[in-house]
Amino acid sequence: MSSPKNSEIRIALDAMGGDFAPRNEVQGAVLALRELPDKLRIILVGDENKIAEELKKAEYSGDKIQIRHAAEVITMHDSPSKAVKEKKDSSLVVAANLVKNDEADALVSAGNTGAVGVASIFIIGRIKGVSRPTIAAPIPNEKRSFTYISDAGAFVDSKPDHLVEFATLTATYLSEVYGVKNPSVGLLNVGEEESKGLKFTKETFDLMKKTDLNFIGNIEGRDIFKGTVDIALCDGFIGNLLLKQAESMLSFLKTKFKQYAETSLIAKLQIGLAVPAIKKALYDADVDNVGGTPLLGINGITIIGHGSSKPKGIKNMILQAAKAFDADLVNKLKEAIENEHERTQSS
Amino acid sequence: MSSPKNSEIRIALDAMGGDFAPRNEVQGAVLALRELPDKLRIILVGDENKIAEELKKAEYSGDKIQIRHAAEVITMHDSPSKAVKEKKDSSLVVAANLVKNDEADALVSAGNTGAVGVASIFIIGRIKGVSRPTIAAPIPNEKRSFTYISDAGAFVDSKPDHLVEFATLTATYLSEVYGVKNPSVGLLNVGEEESKGLKFTKETFDLMKKTDLNFIGNIEGRDIFKGTVDIALCDGFIGNLLLKQAESMLSFLKTKFKQYAETSLIAKLQIGLAVPAIKKALYDADVDNVGGTPLLGINGITIIGHGSSKPKGIKNMILQAAKAFDADLVNKLKEAIENEHERTQSS
Repeated sequence: MSSPKNSEIRIALDAMGGDFAPRNEVQGAVLALRELPDKLRIILVGDENKIAEELKKAEYSGDKIQIRHAAEVITMHDSPSKAVKEKKDSSLVVAANLVKNDEADALVSAGNTGAVGVASIFIIGRIKGVSRPTIAAPIPNEKRSFTYISDAGAFVDSKPDHLVEFATLTATYLSEVYGVKNPSVGLLNVGEEESKGLKFTKETFDLMKKTDLNFIGNIEGRDIFKGTVDIALCDGFIGNLLLKQAESMLSFLKTKFKQYAETSLIAKLQIGLAVPAIKKALYDADVDNVGGTPLLGINGITIIGHGSSKPKGIKNMILQAAKAFDADLVNKLKEAIENEHERTQSS
Repeated sequence: MSSPKNSEIRIALDAMGGDFAPRNEVQGAVLALRELPDKLRIILVGDENKIAEELKKAEYSGDKIQIRHAAEVITMHDSPSKAVKEKKDSSLVVAANLVKNDEADALVSAGNTGAVGVASIFIIGRIKGVSRPTIAAPIPNEKRSFTYISDAGAFVDSKPDHLVEFATLTATYLSEVYGVKNPSVGLLNVGEEESKGLKFTKETFDLMKKTDLNFIGNIEGRDIFKGTVDIALCDGFIGNLLLKQAESMLSFLKTKFKQYAETSLIAKLQIGLAVPAIKKALYDADVDNVGGTPLLGINGITIIGHGSSKPKGIKNMILQAAKAFDADLVNKLKEAIENEHERTQSS
């Protein structure tokens, strides 16, 4: 895999993944190319005819997009492991193989999250020394920044040493790709005192204290939105629940404002006037404005997005992949994991 | 303990518990009495002089409030078990003893949550057959109602059969006190399929299927705000994290709106005009408008509130206790737990 700063990145885009595929995927690819015309080369993987039709509608005339046919589709209802094993000619599996065979640098998909994880781990493969990759999901916080929940659901039932890996991978991602200096890590727990929580959290706390990471101790559920730390560390079972609750806030707010608007004409007017300001104030809470979440620890760049991603969301996922590529992410993660292993062995 | 519908309820109010004690506690008690003058009898427990001073300021002239002196205070920083054991003359311990000795029907406190739990369990005692009480915390949802997270943090590391108890207690609470018909219960998990999740969730799923409760299966983190079920069932470690994240939403929104308002004069004007509507639309998301959370499974009524509770919040906690008393909650919970045990033994 090549990755010098000024070279092109080749994106394998699972064009059949999302709920509005391939339309949103194709439009997202075109939007991304408008922003970074010299940086991107995009391979749209999926049903050739459908993709060509959407591409025609999108009126793209450049030469940076190509189509790679794949006859099958992995749906949201498919069992991840089974689907990746059996649907060899699915858009996701074909796209993952492009990365594996160095025909692409990044896999971008708004499809079945579990299947994207399985395809990344078993087709593209893990970085040497990584036992469990992690999903690092950005949640907007009060500090005009993001708190990354890690692991946000790549694995359930992780062990304390897996959490140390998650922290190492995520801290490296934030410092290398987003320039966050010495990212702070907090362990999600039911109280701040070291003695709080489960056997699992106490063991993780002890291991984290020994790392070179900027570990600040235990944090609570409120610290995610508050932005107390850059990284909120937890097992993927908990991370997935917290991520989905945080993401559902926007739908909750929309419904509440709508319900209030229905109470009177004045209320309707008030909400009508307020909506543009609310949207701007909560810009970062709209996942389409952010993009997706990286799966860290893979021997390539994987960006996983929401099934409901709009073209703007797909565009942002592609831009995220490009940013990670420019930072030479995979090699930086390799170095970080090696250093962490050396530290553990010498201590 | 007496509890006929039309009788008075005697509230033991920990007047030193909250961050603004005893001022907010005293004012809250007076507000509650203005709403239910014939229903309530309130015993303010704590520093006699300070309470008397606040009571004077509140200009209460009725005879439904009395003061019970307690010299010590359990703070937010105290270790719950240690504090309850050692501070025998603390406002919390004295208030809990009033319930134990049938001098009061309910314990209401905005103090150290862990200590309120310990005092309730070890002084007032559990209902026979209940191995673990549960905190059932209401989160507003899109269905103009509340989703109760249970257990929201009374215990960490609960077992599947504890969760069945939590569900039984919470469902009985909702149906008896709030008239929710056949409350639906969902098990918090990382996906809806029965096979998803941890060994722990699979075992809980199997046990829940066998109950007479309205168990609808697994739910995800988004279902809390969405209102898919009445009760979101989980271990207290997870419930505490989700509760605190949900509660921190309002502070996040305030900060985001403030940050946007600072971007321009027009933005400031927009937000200024929007705030009243936003506040009304999100009325239920303000914990002071709701009150507190019951600790269910105790041989008495316990309502736990936020340390930051305003007088309105204290008032609503007292009204919650009165509502539970009118529904003869403790006896209803006893019956429900007995029935559940009979079912288990006969099956």
